[in-house]
Amino acid sequence: MQALIFENELLLKDVPVPEPAAGEVLVKILYSSICNTDLEIIKGYMGFRGVLGHEFVGRVITESHPLRGKTVVGEINCSCGKCYLCLSSRRTHCTNRLVTGIDGHQGVFAGFISLPAENLHIVPDSIPGPVAVFTEPLAAAVEIFEQLHMKPSKPVFIFGAGKLGMLVSMVARLQGFDYTTFDLIPEKTVFARSLGLNAKSLKELLPGEKAEVCIDCTGNAEGIKLALKHLWPRGTLVLKTTVADTAKPDLNSIVINEFTILGSRCGLFKPALNLLERNLVDPSPLISGEFAFTDILKAFESAKNPLNHKIIINHQL
Amino acid sequence: MQALIFENELLLKDVPVPEPAAGEVLVKILYSSICNTDLEIIKGYMGFRGVLGHEFVGRVITESHPLRGKTVVGEINCSCGKCYLCLSSRRTHCTNRLVTGIDGHQGVFAGFISLPAENLHIVPDSIPGPVAVFTEPLAAAVEIFEQLHMKPSKPVFIFGAGKLGMLVSMVARLQGFDYTTFDLIPEKTVFARSLGLNAKSLKELLPGEKAEVCIDCTGNAEGIKLALKHLWPRGTLVLKTTVADTAKPDLNSIVINEFTILGSRCGLFKPALNLLERNLVDPSPLISGEFAFTDILKAFESAKNPLNHKIIINHQL
Repeated sequence: MQALIFENELLLKDVPVPEPAAGEVLVKILYSSICNTDLEIIKGYMGFRGVLGHEFVGRVITESHPLRGKTVVGEINCSCGKCYLCLSSRRTHCTNRLVTGIDGHQGVFAGFISLPAENLHIVPDSIPGPVAVFTEPLAAAVEIFEQLHMKPSKPVFIFGAGKLGMLVSMVARLQGFDYTTFDLIPEKTVFARSLGLNAKSLKELLPGEKAEVCIDCTGNAEGIKLALKHLWPRGTLVLKTTVADTAKPDLNSIVINEFTILGSRCGLFKPALNLLERNLVDPSPLISGEFAFTDILKAFESAKNPLNHKIIINHQL
Repeated sequence: MQALIFENELLLKDVPVPEPAAGEVLVKILYSSICNTDLEIIKGYMGFRGVLGHEFVGRVITESHPLRGKTVVGEINCSCGKCYLCLSSRRTHCTNRLVTGIDGHQGVFAGFISLPAENLHIVPDSIPGPVAVFTEPLAAAVEIFEQLHMKPSKPVFIFGAGKLGMLVSMVARLQGFDYTTFDLIPEKTVFARSLGLNAKSLKELLPGEKAEVCIDCTGNAEGIKLALKHLWPRGTLVLKTTVADTAKPDLNSIVINEFTILGSRCGLFKPALNLLERNLVDPSPLISGEFAFTDILKAFESAKNPLNHKIIINHQL
């Protein structure tokens, strides 16, 4: 099968179809999409080498498996189920975990992927493939609400109207609180407002304006420092950004203001699928382009454009 | 009155007795003590200039005030009572606050101090003066338990067996969880164990040993990095350290491990006074020396010795 390999550079290569291990099933990839983490990996983040990609929707093709023929999405953390972390509701932090396309497990920018059956979720028929591919990043947005009790009466600022910032804003919109999504790039705030989101230019954010919760989805170090400046004392800064170039905030301000800094990563798929199925979140306007898998290198160039949101790869073309 | 002033250097000077403003009462200082924050201030932290000191026990001398003649301790944050933060149970973060001996308000290394009557707490007769002077730092230790729900079944690591680390350990001991207090200096862990605390040398801490909550009381940047290495994913690092030389942890590890970093500062006095009155915490073994106020410069030299814990100033000698 053809696969997109990262080995210091991105290469389309012919590699063997993976052999499912015990408990795994083989999935034919229908759609995949490019995440900022993929863009960070090709800058050196995680030191990953191999088949890239972790956002996908596919069809199970393993014969004799109950899931055969089903359209599925897959959680990206492959866990042991036995360690302290697995046994304390922290499977995504399993000490022995492999992470699809990020750490030690083949990714989804390929014809097929083999994954533990327990990682798969059946996609309801009402969710089109290019929408289902948003399950993974939407789950990462919902993870914030899984981790943090955000009170409906308190203001929330979301920094960054990129791929993840838009999904977080779409989920935040469903709550009662005042939320505002900030971005420096005027086209992005105009676009966010066109989707009914409460988006503003960062230039409109006054020095004294603060929120109970700030969520950093900027993907850069400066965004994190800015978010801390607009947090009420005892407020919480949610960090969603992992970057190859790491940011380092001033710890004294964290102590003096008794801030909470909360790191947030992958989420569980079920609540994200619920939001998509109920049509409470419609990510389809975030699709900025669709490329055939054979054009995936062009797709990556397109994904690097900061004005683009999600770039989808159609593996069936 | 004589007062210890910090103006680039420490000086004992003659200054006028303060005039109580509306709502304030005049307090004669009986005992005061030296905190690490005082030592950081004289290295440049907070850019403070004026009468230093914030830990004290005193006697109200304002005539015709209901507190007259009472022995009191005083909360250090002087708040407006009207701002958003005061009105949302965050008086210690009041946007208009002045902080005794730290930010804009005269400190306690003097003959007298004028403080808002609402900041004062009557000291029960059963608590001796040199013990009551621990109310402020003990309240800072109790603040951790006010902010964070620490589950009795989970392990807790406390880094640093200095003044604050010992008080935090004494409070932690009262809970059901396994706690361990670590320090690099053998004399400090031996001393902590002699008080019945579960203290170990940092050298005994294995690379894979981790806890649900790590509390940094080391007062230095390296301690914070070390504490993060010994935290379970989704665990909480409580930061107690404010240092002139600020530490900067790696944010990627916070996101990947979904750590919570919780800044923690001043606490409320009532629960600390309760612990002292009930004799559940006895800080008296932490008194490493007592100096007359006229010898306060010698007291500061003694406080700089890392093997010393609390240095008490007796203003009545």
